[in-house]
Amino acid sequence: MAVYTDISDDDLTAFVAGYGIGEVLSCKGIAEGVENSNFLLVTEQGSFILTLYEKRVDANDLPFFLGLTEHLSARGIPCPTPVHALNGEVLRELSGRPAAIVTFLTGMWPKRIQNHHCAELGRAMAEMHVTGADFELSRPNALSVESWRPLLEACEGRGDDVLPGITAALNAELDVLESEWPRDLPSGVIHADLFPDNVFFRGEHLSGLIDFYFACNDQFAYDLGICLNAWCFERDGSFNATKARKMLRAYRKVRELSDAEVQALPLLARGAAMRFLLTRLYDWLNTPENALVTPKNPLEYYDKLRFHQAVTGPGAYGLD
Amino acid sequence: MAVYTDISDDDLTAFVAGYGIGEVLSCKGIAEGVENSNFLLVTEQGSFILTLYEKRVDANDLPFFLGLTEHLSARGIPCPTPVHALNGEVLRELSGRPAAIVTFLTGMWPKRIQNHHCAELGRAMAEMHVTGADFELSRPNALSVESWRPLLEACEGRGDDVLPGITAALNAELDVLESEWPRDLPSGVIHADLFPDNVFFRGEHLSGLIDFYFACNDQFAYDLGICLNAWCFERDGSFNATKARKMLRAYRKVRELSDAEVQALPLLARGAAMRFLLTRLYDWLNTPENALVTPKNPLEYYDKLRFHQAVTGPGAYGLD
Repeated sequence: MAVYTDISDDDLTAFVAGYGIGEVLSCKGIAEGVENSNFLLVTEQGSFILTLYEKRVDANDLPFFLGLTEHLSARGIPCPTPVHALNGEVLRELSGRPAAIVTFLTGMWPKRIQNHHCAELGRAMAEMHVTGADFELSRPNALSVESWRPLLEACEGRGDDVLPGITAALNAELDVLESEWPRDLPSGVIHADLFPDNVFFRGEHLSGLIDFYFACNDQFAYDLGICLNAWCFERDGSFNATKARKMLRAYRKVRELSDAEVQALPLLARGAAMRFLLTRLYDWLNTPENALVTPKNPLEYYDKLRFHQAVTGPGAYGLD
Repeated sequence: MAVYTDISDDDLTAFVAGYGIGEVLSCKGIAEGVENSNFLLVTEQGSFILTLYEKRVDANDLPFFLGLTEHLSARGIPCPTPVHALNGEVLRELSGRPAAIVTFLTGMWPKRIQNHHCAELGRAMAEMHVTGADFELSRPNALSVESWRPLLEACEGRGDDVLPGITAALNAELDVLESEWPRDLPSGVIHADLFPDNVFFRGEHLSGLIDFYFACNDQFAYDLGICLNAWCFERDGSFNATKARKMLRAYRKVRELSDAEVQALPLLARGAAMRFLLTRLYDWLNTPENALVTPKNPLEYYDKLRFHQAVTGPGAYGLD
């Protein structure tokens, strides 16, 4: 649930008047997203998304996020495009927050993942990787391998309150990840948070990628590792190799994977599981009881981590 | 924040196919309203509101609410009109809940109440009262004077944890309200919850009345009592008689008030303050700490009640 900031009518009217998009007809808070306040803004010219950036997003990163989506959408990737104000700016201020208006994308995120969703995701992710290659700004991945042990330490051993023994197990896993993590795989801009609720479909066709607020420069195949975790496990916890194969095959039709990338997939998938496990564990242990956002259960990602630990090679992901 | 129920894509597609409104382009949960789950539904034919009725609404009342808004909007009152499915129904089922699609109203509710808002409100309320007169269904007001003492008793004296002495003070006030409550004032369909967030404006013009889920048959002037409380107090707790006069004058241009109605206003305003004070107090004492909805502070309405208790006559509301 994500509306942290109320906007006064007068402020909104004055803000929107700074764009050439007509009079405000409606503005409703959207109950999606957890980082920012999002509103569905209807003006005489159509529908838009108005975002107020809350404290969890570093304002210094906003030019990267907004520039990236403008770069991508200008080159055919279906993602929200920032609307320029009459003075040329895309990042302005509203109700004391950095704020932007972006284009509205049709489509809905899939609540029940089917094979064809994974194929479309793989294709679109590869197209995004290729298209982002010549984007001029860069942003390091603040949630890559170096950040994981400090995150675990910040949990102060209280992970064992959730599952006895998990702190030691994760420390041992970090030993492996830190020593074996690849450094030289093809790199560029990755989305880094391509969960199903950030991918819109119209029927069987992918219609939008949203929420680029974790986008960064990193190894492309790490994005695949994240999506193997986010899209290819069934609700009962079992891994669906058919979905993984569909995703990877569609990806490779657009951007071929090197042998090194293919061989690294199991380790990248372990790292991706660790990254989401740790942020969820930290949030689980540190969310006040009366918070608006319910924290996600970290143990789902511990089960996924253990699956990838047991994998003997990339064949487990449906690769030949 | 109000999305209590998730809808699967397949269920939504099948549901919307039952209407002649084209393919679903988008469906986003709205972070407004506290009783039901509301979604902004965009189809090839435009924007709609999709509502899933949750447990707090009695399903037996839904034909009254949907029939009333259809009756009113057909006669020019700007309120959501239920869309008929191809089979003629307006009330169907989705994700195990009663569900309806209603038309989308433009406009925004006023965060900062100004005098002109109160005038427009008075006019629209009177038009709604007049227009609802020949609506054929009826629904008793479940939150009228008979319900208040049981509500106070359900608080089990714990109101004194919020403010020492309040239980005795409210019992004494109920003695007055129960013995003096008017019974013979002109009656018909009232909205009974016309708070600012249920009234949309475009610029200075009222563009919509929404959320009829407390609408019922009761004395018209009780709706005025509710709005004296909801619209005419400033944030510092002071009563703004100019706002009250604007509201009442605009109302009387459409529907004249009898002498008995005018004389009853102070008592009706006390009753309205009591009604919202008691439901807020009950919710305050009974909301689990991890609830999605933050309960509203009941003491705001205790201060309003005490203002009306001290009033010596309807002149306090700006009437001549």
